[in-house]
Amino acid sequence: MTKPECILLVDDNRMDVELALDAFREVRFSNRIEVAGGGQQALDYLFGHGAYADRARYPLPVLTLLDLKMPGIDGFDVLRRIKETPLLKRIPVVILTSSREEGDRAMSYDIGANSYLVKPVSFTKFVEVVKQIEGYWLTLNAPPPLPMDEAGLHGRE
Amino acid sequence: MTKPECILLVDDNRMDVELALDAFREVRFSNRIEVAGGGQQALDYLFGHGAYADRARYPLPVLTLLDLKMPGIDGFDVLRRIKETPLLKRIPVVILTSSREEGDRAMSYDIGANSYLVKPVSFTKFVEVVKQIEGYWLTLNAPPPLPMDEAGLHGRE
Repeated sequence: MTKPECILLVDDNRMDVELALDAFREVRFSNRIEVAGGGQQALDYLFGHGAYADRARYPLPVLTLLDLKMPGIDGFDVLRRIKETPLLKRIPVVILTSSREEGDRAMSYDIGANSYLVKPVSFTKFVEVVKQIEGYWLTLNAPPPLPMDEAGLHGRE
Repeated sequence: MTKPECILLVDDNRMDVELALDAFREVRFSNRIEVAGGGQQALDYLFGHGAYADRARYPLPVLTLLDLKMPGIDGFDVLRRIKETPLLKRIPVVILTSSREEGDRAMSYDIGANSYLVKPVSFTKFVEVVKQIEGYWLTLNAPPPLPMDEAGLHGRE
């Protein structure tokens, strides 16, 4: 059975997206997954702009998995917008990146990332990470209440 | 072997603290655990005040487990102080409370809690939760770099 909650995966690398989606399938991940191929698309989704204006169809995600290094609006920009916006800031954001660098970790947590995970290189390990993400964030963690419509976001952008 | 990293457990309920410490022992938790029996003690530890002035002896925790309902300075106050203080705000704070209430979840995430867990009632389940905390936050999650001394905190309190 599909859980109504959706998660938002933000990554510009199509191969990494495919790897993630395969891993989600492998662990029989039951949440709906929305993919944003870049920072601008992620913000459009989260703020309900353009094609994403219908919040019933494109609900706020219970979890966002966010890549850092993207052209244009990057992961830090997206994270900053989320964490400075009332209501959106409640959404847990887990950084999922290839970077282990201290500076990237420091900046992510300073802006308000809820957690920081390094992308594993092998598919087997990726499946393990996805299992832990599912077990921790979608089963154990008690999520924030999220608005079902955009009322709380209007006029705040 | 004891890992050098320490975690800070903040809870005024001595029975809950004992339950947690028993669970940590049960899963052969290798991190050092510092216990703060209230909000004021937690802030003293984190800001290196009084008895906690020696940061080499009382290092900043790689993870804080924070109860919400405490007399005097409560969990929300502690969380607010942590998340509004540069450098301290990097420390992952996991709320560990008996409350499932929507208002408490909303306020915790709004102030900047990294995660929110509801205390299980049975010891068996508590051990499971501690296992997941260990597996997720102390093994999988890439932690923020933390200052080894108080230089970054001085003058900011």
